[in-house]
Amino acid sequence: MTANSQSAVLGVSGYAGMELARILLRHPRLGSTPPIFLGRPDSAAEPLTAVHPHLLDNNGSRALQIEPFSWDLLRDRGVQVLFLATPHEQSRELVPHALERGLRVIDLSGAWRLEHPANRAIYKFSDEGSSVATAIQTQAVYGMPELHRDQIRHALLVANPGCYATSVILALKPLLAAGWVDTTHGIVCDSKSGVSGAGKAPSAKTHFMHAADNLSAYNVFGHRHTGELLEQLELAPDQIVFTPHLLPIPRGILSTIYVWFREPHQPAQVEALYKQFFAESPLVRIFAANHLPQIQYSVRTNYCDIGFHLSADGRRCVIVSCLDNLLKGAAGQAVQNLNLMLGLPEAEGLV
Amino acid sequence: MTANSQSAVLGVSGYAGMELARILLRHPRLGSTPPIFLGRPDSAAEPLTAVHPHLLDNNGSRALQIEPFSWDLLRDRGVQVLFLATPHEQSRELVPHALERGLRVIDLSGAWRLEHPANRAIYKFSDEGSSVATAIQTQAVYGMPELHRDQIRHALLVANPGCYATSVILALKPLLAAGWVDTTHGIVCDSKSGVSGAGKAPSAKTHFMHAADNLSAYNVFGHRHTGELLEQLELAPDQIVFTPHLLPIPRGILSTIYVWFREPHQPAQVEALYKQFFAESPLVRIFAANHLPQIQYSVRTNYCDIGFHLSADGRRCVIVSCLDNLLKGAAGQAVQNLNLMLGLPEAEGLV
Amino acid sequence: MTANSQSAVLGVSGYAGMELARILLRHPRLGSTPPIFLGRPDSAAEPLTAVHPHLLDNNGSRALQIEPFSWDLLRDRGVQVLFLATPHEQSRELVPHALERGLRVIDLSGAWRLEHPANRAIYKFSDEGSSVATAIQTQAVYGMPELHRDQIRHALLVANPGCYATSVILALKPLLAAGWVDTTHGIVCDSKSGVSGAGKAPSAKTHFMHAADNLSAYNVFGHRHTGELLEQLELAPDQIVFTPHLLPIPRGILSTIYVWFREPHQPAQVEALYKQFFAESPLVRIFAANHLPQIQYSVRTNYCDIGFHLSADGRRCVIVSCLDNLLKGAAGQAVQNLNLMLGLPEAEGLV
Amino acid sequence: MTANSQSAVLGVSGYAGMELARILLRHPRLGSTPPIFLGRPDSAAEPLTAVHPHLLDNNGSRALQIEPFSWDLLRDRGVQVLFLATPHEQSRELVPHALERGLRVIDLSGAWRLEHPANRAIYKFSDEGSSVATAIQTQAVYGMPELHRDQIRHALLVANPGCYATSVILALKPLLAAGWVDTTHGIVCDSKSGVSGAGKAPSAKTHFMHAADNLSAYNVFGHRHTGELLEQLELAPDQIVFTPHLLPIPRGILSTIYVWFREPHQPAQVEALYKQFFAESPLVRIFAANHLPQIQYSVRTNYCDIGFHLSADGRRCVIVSCLDNLLKGAAGQAVQNLNLMLGLPEAEGLV
Repeated sequence: MTANSQSAVLGVSGYAGMELARILLRHPRLGSTPPIFLGRPDSAAEPLTAVHPHLLDNNGSRALQIEPFSWDLLRDRGVQVLFLATPHEQSRELVPHALERGLRVIDLSGAWRLEHPANRAIYKFSDEGSSVATAIQTQAVYGMPELHRDQIRHALLVANPGCYATSVILALKPLLAAGWVDTTHGIVCDSKSGVSGAGKAPSAKTHFMHAADNLSAYNVFGHRHTGELLEQLELAPDQIVFTPHLLPIPRGILSTIYVWFREPHQPAQVEALYKQFFAESPLVRIFAANHLPQIQYSVRTNYCDIGFHLSADGRRCVIVSCLDNLLKGAAGQAVQNLNLMLGLPEAEGLV
Repeated sequence: MTANSQSAVLGVSGYAGMELARILLRHPRLGSTPPIFLGRPDSAAEPLTAVHPHLLDNNGSRALQIEPFSWDLLRDRGVQVLFLATPHEQSRELVPHALERGLRVIDLSGAWRLEHPANRAIYKFSDEGSSVATAIQTQAVYGMPELHRDQIRHALLVANPGCYATSVILALKPLLAAGWVDTTHGIVCDSKSGVSGAGKAPSAKTHFMHAADNLSAYNVFGHRHTGELLEQLELAPDQIVFTPHLLPIPRGILSTIYVWFREPHQPAQVEALYKQFFAESPLVRIFAANHLPQIQYSVRTNYCDIGFHLSADGRRCVIVSCLDNLLKGAAGQAVQNLNLMLGLPEAEGLV
Repeated sequence: MTANSQSAVLGVSGYAGMELARILLRHPRLGSTPPIFLGRPDSAAEPLTAVHPHLLDNNGSRALQIEPFSWDLLRDRGVQVLFLATPHEQSRELVPHALERGLRVIDLSGAWRLEHPANRAIYKFSDEGSSVATAIQTQAVYGMPELHRDQIRHALLVANPGCYATSVILALKPLLAAGWVDTTHGIVCDSKSGVSGAGKAPSAKTHFMHAADNLSAYNVFGHRHTGELLEQLELAPDQIVFTPHLLPIPRGILSTIYVWFREPHQPAQVEALYKQFFAESPLVRIFAANHLPQIQYSVRTNYCDIGFHLSADGRRCVIVSCLDNLLKGAAGQAVQNLNLMLGLPEAEGLV
Repeated sequence: MTANSQSAVLGVSGYAGMELARILLRHPRLGSTPPIFLGRPDSAAEPLTAVHPHLLDNNGSRALQIEPFSWDLLRDRGVQVLFLATPHEQSRELVPHALERGLRVIDLSGAWRLEHPANRAIYKFSDEGSSVATAIQTQAVYGMPELHRDQIRHALLVANPGCYATSVILALKPLLAAGWVDTTHGIVCDSKSGVSGAGKAPSAKTHFMHAADNLSAYNVFGHRHTGELLEQLELAPDQIVFTPHLLPIPRGILSTIYVWFREPHQPAQVEALYKQFFAESPLVRIFAANHLPQIQYSVRTNYCDIGFHLSADGRRCVIVSCLDNLLKGAAGQAVQNLNLMLGLPEAEGLV
């Protein structure tokens, strides 16, 4: 497979699909073979601009279409990599067929992210426990390049991480890997996300009158991304609390994370630890000690920004992690994974 | 009928109904006989706080309920005035029965606002042209106290004005009534409304991702409130253009209105004309010449604020009119009408 | 002193002063003797509406003025209670003179809230350690009625609590007072506030371009309100972490608070504990177990709303506390204190 | 001069300067010779990221600096094109020196946009009427490529248009040039802009508490951009009214424009006229008849989007024009001008 591999995006009408389309169309190494955009099998073809008017092309020469999905179309057009920006249940159905047909898949849903049945229980997958699903789960690679870069290069199925999970895992992994955190103390992850994280379907929750001028916590002790935290950070359920909140902004996540250290540390030590951990990771930006990222700095970028403050006694640490939930939290990370799968530089088309 | 008359609100779950409940519960002359709140005939009773949690009562002693609608309930509870905060088609159905039962009705929908069939056509009422509907329309009084105060006092059916229409009619009526406006020049009404004007049902239009950080014009040359402007201002269709826009704010309307005068005028003359016209109208506030209202000044009040700027040659006038679309544009004006119908001071419970 | 006591507000031009004016003018027991509004000693008198146009009176008959401050004016007008909505350094200067003149004072600044010098250090008061200041601090009562109701009734100087502190202390006090919290685990308070909390002076932080579509943490391990938490909750500095954030909304605070219990508890027990603690407190609303308040429910009210979720093992508890930072977090609580000082029902004019 | 010409940006700390930096750094033909960023002559050098943290570079290898301005520095570094993102009075001072030194200048301020002294009067330039200023004004080219493409290619001084003016002129020019508009009727331009248009300096107007949840009209009959409309559209002052409004969003302009036609036209004719007029203009997008642009479609792009609705009688036309005030309304248009000056494709680096 080469950089000229043909890709396709199923589910381009949602927010993550929209951002995937935008990135792939401008990708310097993929632009010559634009992705194929796919909608429901029973839908009629329609212009991409009918769904996302701001992706309007001026010259009209690139009349991008959303075509109805079919396996034959993928085969006839020589598709090699399939992005799934589909609901998780649909991803569970499609992935076995895709792999059987020799496609490599980057799945943006939560369908294949979790190894342990207990963590998957919250999704209530209809094929849970089937031999096919179990076999596929074994193959799936959790698509966080900063943790699993080498496996992703050769993966057939990449399970693109959740947006909240990305912001928390990247912020905690260096400290936990170094053994600095006193996990008996309990880690607190207080996360806040813009409304695009709730999806494009109109609902009482996404109504402007509910979301604007408001803030609310939801799914306390019960958010789906919790399982990703437990597995990727190797924590027990009682060692971490994760609370998501709905922010009155279109996009962006800020996670405020509280840990207690086993031993006191200096700010310079913490900064050095982070910088070393992410030395080879072009899409994570570490802020200087006592300087914090804000949501505005990373929105509409593919970066995850991380900063921290240390208490005077050097035992308590507040980490702030920011990213754009549709980019580093979804479509940007998906293309980062694609780059690795195609042997391209990891940040190609993303900075 | 006295100030102790029992009132009922059908459609309390919507935004206008919510504001009606809030105002009526605090009304100094009606608080002792709180209104009856009604939902669909086939709904179960539920606490008002289940629908509008911010109306939570602390002490629990006033356990307000939304009860299923029935004519028998209205009769048994001695209801004399019925507020309809219902869709217009439903108001067309209910009003004949209500009047037959001797109820006085304040209808917040567009069902009975328009006298001329041509102006009503846009609503496509299913009973259009029926003898019952025609007879009722004849009785209906357009519920703008500043224009029809005396008729409202004795009305059986008050058609509460549209929110946009209220902001435009109050701003233009004094100038037109004085004969100052050169209507051959064309009057331009550029109106902007917060999202609550689009109703509580979730839709693509009211999704936070569409409304936030955006502005859009809609229903150009085709908004339902246009007929109210034509009838109340006695204008021909080609004498006025009305363009509504969706603002990224929860509530409030600002209309910017452009007129050409027949003769030049001084700012002091214009200010005096407005102040005289509204001298007896406690819920219209006229700003000093060259001082303009802003949306923030009238939001969460029952006022309509009006200001203007005059060109150096005294021939062109830009009028700015602001109000809260849910209050002076809906529930506040409805209670203003109730006050008149009950012989109370017009602004009772509203300032 | 009686309910007809004359009050005065110094610093009416700020947001807290604005809300004080609004509440006092509508207070059913004080409306007949409207407060006196005061600005800087060297300022000219100006209409209240010049500073807060939305407080416009329609009829013009109540031509409220902001008058230049002087002690003589307070004496001549018979002022008995003085509200200070002034910067803390100014409150340090004014309070000794006010008490000497026999005035009772409700100070909305941070000048007199903290008993221990270590907690006050962050303010760098210029009179720190002076015998006058020390004597006055001894007299000051922390103005949180739910904790110090009886002392407030007779207080000469009430130090009105900080907005963040109110939201955190009310949420934690019942659990700590009952001895349920394992304080060795560390309590985490993640608070988020609307922009009005940053004051009215234009700054880079309050610029729309910085605040909108953004979220940022600030003053980590160093916010002034931390001392109030330590003193009122009787905690050591290493037992609690408090992180404030700036929300892109005009007003409202939501605090998400994380505690570990010594023993497991049932949701019903936690709910009962809260309800009992606040049984006599009309301005605290306890939500049913597993139902959380949102910022919208308490904004523009004088309530503090509290809800919680318990982990499955009953050992970890996430509490969410909401209030309007300008009302229960400032002006509303100040009037609640005034009511107690005047022997009125605590919630008079506030519900 | 070639595409490798060295450029410099003075005033990079403001919003337009920030966007200039962003575009120039990613420009495919200029990226190899990054622009020089300049601050005040008496300022110390500082990293670009100190002022605009979101422009952070990950790898640290491109340690962009803002350097203190001096003519010697420009000479020593071989600067050939100077962008001025400075206040207009400063641009009046600097341009004579720059031209004398052989630099070509793209000035984003209002300093050199207006030919007629009457239209310039509102700026109160301190050098108004001086022979130097008059000579320079004669050389200045109004930098709207869609109208003055050929002159811009060879210009020494390009006066980059105002943001409001761009949105109105592009929308009206085709209709006026075709002679379709009945100018005796009066053209109404009702424009709405996001807060970035008000600049970066904190002020009461740009305070979040004023701008959010609000809408206000300002500078009625007196906005500085009016002169640009008169000159570029060749209209008399009484033929057009322009009213700007402040929107509660960070960026974007929507202008709603009302014209009366001399003769009735069909929608298809209007659409064809626009498409023909802008056939060679890659940064103007014409929407199909009766389809309107919204602010969201053009924000963060370099396009101006134009759509319209026609009344049933074909005599009245409402045109809606949208652009990003910092891009097509400022920095994007400035780079479009640079492209022309350097002989590059007009939209290079902008689509």
